[in-house]
Amino acid sequence: MIKVGIVGAGGYAGVNLLGILLRHPKVEVKWLMSEPAHKGKSISGLFPHLKNNCELVCETLDDLDKNLSSIDIVFLALPHGIALNYVPRILKAGKKVVDLGADYRFNDEAVFKKWYQIDHPDKKVLAKAVFGSPELYKNKIKKASLIGNPGCYPTASILGLAPLVKNGLIDLDSICIDAKSGVSGAGRGANLKVHYCERNEGVMPYAVTSHRHMGEVEYQLGRVAGKEMAVTFVPHLIPMTRGILTTIYAKLKGKSEKLKALYKLFYKDAPFVRILDIEPCTKYVVNSNYCDISVAYNECTNTVIVMSAIDNLIKGAAGQAVQNMNLICGYDETEGLTGLAVYP
Amino acid sequence: MIKVGIVGAGGYAGVNLLGILLRHPKVEVKWLMSEPAHKGKSISGLFPHLKNNCELVCETLDDLDKNLSSIDIVFLALPHGIALNYVPRILKAGKKVVDLGADYRFNDEAVFKKWYQIDHPDKKVLAKAVFGSPELYKNKIKKASLIGNPGCYPTASILGLAPLVKNGLIDLDSICIDAKSGVSGAGRGANLKVHYCERNEGVMPYAVTSHRHMGEVEYQLGRVAGKEMAVTFVPHLIPMTRGILTTIYAKLKGKSEKLKALYKLFYKDAPFVRILDIEPCTKYVVNSNYCDISVAYNECTNTVIVMSAIDNLIKGAAGQAVQNMNLICGYDETEGLTGLAVYP
Amino acid sequence: MIKVGIVGAGGYAGVNLLGILLRHPKVEVKWLMSEPAHKGKSISGLFPHLKNNCELVCETLDDLDKNLSSIDIVFLALPHGIALNYVPRILKAGKKVVDLGADYRFNDEAVFKKWYQIDHPDKKVLAKAVFGSPELYKNKIKKASLIGNPGCYPTASILGLAPLVKNGLIDLDSICIDAKSGVSGAGRGANLKVHYCERNEGVMPYAVTSHRHMGEVEYQLGRVAGKEMAVTFVPHLIPMTRGILTTIYAKLKGKSEKLKALYKLFYKDAPFVRILDIEPCTKYVVNSNYCDISVAYNECTNTVIVMSAIDNLIKGAAGQAVQNMNLICGYDETEGLTGLAVYP
Amino acid sequence: MIKVGIVGAGGYAGVNLLGILLRHPKVEVKWLMSEPAHKGKSISGLFPHLKNNCELVCETLDDLDKNLSSIDIVFLALPHGIALNYVPRILKAGKKVVDLGADYRFNDEAVFKKWYQIDHPDKKVLAKAVFGSPELYKNKIKKASLIGNPGCYPTASILGLAPLVKNGLIDLDSICIDAKSGVSGAGRGANLKVHYCERNEGVMPYAVTSHRHMGEVEYQLGRVAGKEMAVTFVPHLIPMTRGILTTIYAKLKGKSEKLKALYKLFYKDAPFVRILDIEPCTKYVVNSNYCDISVAYNECTNTVIVMSAIDNLIKGAAGQAVQNMNLICGYDETEGLTGLAVYP
Repeated sequence: MIKVGIVGAGGYAGVNLLGILLRHPKVEVKWLMSEPAHKGKSISGLFPHLKNNCELVCETLDDLDKNLSSIDIVFLALPHGIALNYVPRILKAGKKVVDLGADYRFNDEAVFKKWYQIDHPDKKVLAKAVFGSPELYKNKIKKASLIGNPGCYPTASILGLAPLVKNGLIDLDSICIDAKSGVSGAGRGANLKVHYCERNEGVMPYAVTSHRHMGEVEYQLGRVAGKEMAVTFVPHLIPMTRGILTTIYAKLKGKSEKLKALYKLFYKDAPFVRILDIEPCTKYVVNSNYCDISVAYNECTNTVIVMSAIDNLIKGAAGQAVQNMNLICGYDETEGLTGLAVYP
Repeated sequence: MIKVGIVGAGGYAGVNLLGILLRHPKVEVKWLMSEPAHKGKSISGLFPHLKNNCELVCETLDDLDKNLSSIDIVFLALPHGIALNYVPRILKAGKKVVDLGADYRFNDEAVFKKWYQIDHPDKKVLAKAVFGSPELYKNKIKKASLIGNPGCYPTASILGLAPLVKNGLIDLDSICIDAKSGVSGAGRGANLKVHYCERNEGVMPYAVTSHRHMGEVEYQLGRVAGKEMAVTFVPHLIPMTRGILTTIYAKLKGKSEKLKALYKLFYKDAPFVRILDIEPCTKYVVNSNYCDISVAYNECTNTVIVMSAIDNLIKGAAGQAVQNMNLICGYDETEGLTGLAVYP
Repeated sequence: MIKVGIVGAGGYAGVNLLGILLRHPKVEVKWLMSEPAHKGKSISGLFPHLKNNCELVCETLDDLDKNLSSIDIVFLALPHGIALNYVPRILKAGKKVVDLGADYRFNDEAVFKKWYQIDHPDKKVLAKAVFGSPELYKNKIKKASLIGNPGCYPTASILGLAPLVKNGLIDLDSICIDAKSGVSGAGRGANLKVHYCERNEGVMPYAVTSHRHMGEVEYQLGRVAGKEMAVTFVPHLIPMTRGILTTIYAKLKGKSEKLKALYKLFYKDAPFVRILDIEPCTKYVVNSNYCDISVAYNECTNTVIVMSAIDNLIKGAAGQAVQNMNLICGYDETEGLTGLAVYP
Repeated sequence: MIKVGIVGAGGYAGVNLLGILLRHPKVEVKWLMSEPAHKGKSISGLFPHLKNNCELVCETLDDLDKNLSSIDIVFLALPHGIALNYVPRILKAGKKVVDLGADYRFNDEAVFKKWYQIDHPDKKVLAKAVFGSPELYKNKIKKASLIGNPGCYPTASILGLAPLVKNGLIDLDSICIDAKSGVSGAGRGANLKVHYCERNEGVMPYAVTSHRHMGEVEYQLGRVAGKEMAVTFVPHLIPMTRGILTTIYAKLKGKSEKLKALYKLFYKDAPFVRILDIEPCTKYVVNSNYCDISVAYNECTNTVIVMSAIDNLIKGAAGQAVQNMNLICGYDETEGLTGLAVYP
């Protein structure tokens, strides 16, 4: 039984993390932190679905130091640029960190700065962070003390592309990622962009050439490829709450016959990746930790089409964070994560 | 004042056509036809929103011949493969036809057969059909007696790509069209695929390498390009009722600076095409005849990104059909089509 | 051709009003006002669906006085408590007012204060206001210079109940109004309650015993009844953008056979009220000015069940406001309001 | 570890039951049956979200007899009128039955016939059936061999009203139940009524004076009251997939002060009933077995307002069925049912 604390419990990723951990057989949640406006409030007041299941009261980051001794692992679910001010001291206190934010997803401070316009305060810590993609770095994760949990779009994009990139099967200059996300990816903060009436019954692209997750995909796929690379990445807002679908286009090099077998082989030890015979639908994965992938090939245009679906808040955030925690703790990778999709 | 009849009034395209024509100042709707199960039923019984506005009773195609004399133009909104059995005799009776279905969108019977597996019964008639894209063929449409009204996906795709293709600005081998459609595109027929609970809160691709509209886009863009071409086209179902957004990716040849000016010039005489400074959203066009287009450029990948949004039932079907009718009749192109989007 | 100005054009009611008036054949919109944050912004920047249709720039209420001379009628679409500071001087300038807010829906300042906790600054003006329900007060409206346009819930509730109340057919102590509204009723302001993810896929009651529209229903139905009365009124938020359905329960006094005939008679001169043979659905009225009503009777419990459906932004706000304007101006009541529901 | 079979696994209630039982620590699912069209198909082919979690192949009711020996309990999730042909022989084989359909919810064959127009083939078996509402009949359920699992609307309605009815606190002639349901309540069968485009963005009542669940509520509440009674019950379709909210109105007899305390006392031993301090929202219970209840009082009309929320497929069907199974088997009532709501 390990003890954990959650920072950022008042957000959608945070509360999903809490929900998973409350049902995890080997975890005890000791405390929760959220923004100052939530201080002193019961988490079940912020999220009434938790009534009778968790009556922890929110603290804030000001209470972090005094609370570190009671836990083994800290989960951070914060907007970018905050975690990096706290992580070094948490590590120094001998605690492990799973950061669901963006601050430790790049080991290279220059690349981080390019995309986030922030100087990283401690490059040594940054260099030690392990990118928390269990399908790519399981052994490193097991030994890590600091995990940069992948972003939601990058999770779907990288899992969709890694087998092709690793095996040199596509023209790296030709990759286009068309990503579709439910609105929960924008977080719980209120603004016009997430107003029900502005999102309902409409689909739109945004940040067409500038989304920060494009940088994460390029950096992490570049590590897989062994060289620098760029991708076209266009995210879209879809009128639904949860789920990401990426549809990925690339020019094939070599033969198309064995693409599916290649994916099955690449992910043979990945319990949460399913290679489908049909098109994926986000409904098949909502509230589960699965990433469903399907591959097709348009022979007239010599284009391989990869489709991947995740729940942005589970495999794209909280579930993958727990999967990383399981690996760090030596637990079975699937512990606490066996929930099936809600259907319909 | 011209007189028209509508065949296929019991479907979503048909009833939207009826709605527009009922408010058109220069049109009188004389009769409606629908499937045999609707025979003798009031259209306002099938569609209660029409109560007090139209009490026409549905006839069927068996009643076509005797009804031709009362009208000037017939609109056909039918599944593919039906209209082609009736159009020759309608033309022979001296009436004009706007066919919202697929039967007259290809002038080449071999291409039609490739995609629809049907032999066209009258190749002379087929050769005379004019593709009803007013932005491309306004003058031909004015003189036409038979219009093949473009499909919904092709409307958004072709309007998005035509300026680039016409001017030779993109690598024709590199085109990927990622299309997102509301569920009404699947028609009013009941099946599991359009069940509320199967579509709601989910996004999925379908017909990934085989959608018939891919053939229409290739054929019609090939005419614009002056050569045969192929595209990658992947449609997706989005949990909303109306609207199509296409996000189109292609490698740029030449300079990126003046793309937007190019689009504005290309569409300077097109009252229903708006070139936006922001990303399009299907909400901005729902229930209107507009096609909103935006262009972006990713310089790291040398990729031009075109985004186009339409209401699949208006500019993608009924509205464009009326636009064609206006041109045929010598009316102002926008007559009866000035409705603004419903917002929010 | 009359000239109008709109105050509150940046909200959902305001922009729907603008949309109707832009297409009204006898109206010219001279200026728009909105909140200070919108000052100087083009309305089509705030609402991109208006591009190419209205390029007016938003002013603010500070600009009101200098703008009064250019118009005949002012529409006010403001949160309660603001209009009452401006209306007296607009009337003094000889202009007419249609107020879509709550400030002039009660002629009795004590009742207004009870529900809104505000002292009305000018009771003489208040006393002159006419409640803008054309189905009840058409002749008064024609002669009015100040209209208190009914609230959205009250419109549906009062139209549903007026025939029964007027004819003394129900026990006035037994009325329960269960009202269901789309989210646009909450306005365009961003807050957690209208966050897409908080409303989507959920239904909830709110303000169960305290909603201000309960006071409006009680006051206005009391006028119809000729005595003071109270009702139970429970509003609910429904995961949709537009539309209100009220389901109204009351104990019947007298016979049940001729209820429908009674409704048809009561509304025989009301072009926007339709008495249905089937259950109403908000989809049948969305984007139209109709109020659809259906009546049923449960004989085991001697309960009459009235169901009424409107578009909260049209018949419940902007459309009814234009209907009132038409009456004031001596135009046909339906001028500019003949739009059919968007279906599906 | 008990062994179970599921009949009707191809429907929404059936697949939710399967999902719960696959994760239940003390249950093994031995076989599945569905309609003839599904025979021989893998359940994960019908419901792709189950891939890698259940590869059972569907049989049909023709295979029932030969399969009875392998299980202890049969779950039936069938349209009404089918189960009653099979239950007697299942019981004769010494197996227990939880019937999620309507066939065993009335112990009185005359009442059943009144609402379902079917003669019950075996009145002795009918008389032995226990209404599976654990909050009302826990001890009877523990000893039962045949459970009539409550309908979805009746679950929410009866749990909302039982404390008031049992304590004689309301006028039984005054009860109005306004029920709002997600579309999954209509089942997985395809028809126009559940077409995405017909339900999306609309709310409508249906079966306003004739819904069969009204009979179930009257019969079962009558048992609680100790006398025959009738209610007004109006169901509505809401554009969402899962969830039921009932808003219940009744005239209070006696005092209003201690209503909430009364509810808390009544449900003190009910682990799945939560008495809220705020309004319930179906989102707080989706995918959980909770029934959330809130009570309010309108003093002007002396009306008590009870609001109850459930997930129609869990507490309203599959979850409650497993709760009953737990009681029958002597397991903890909450075993396998501790899932939290999916939020958001």
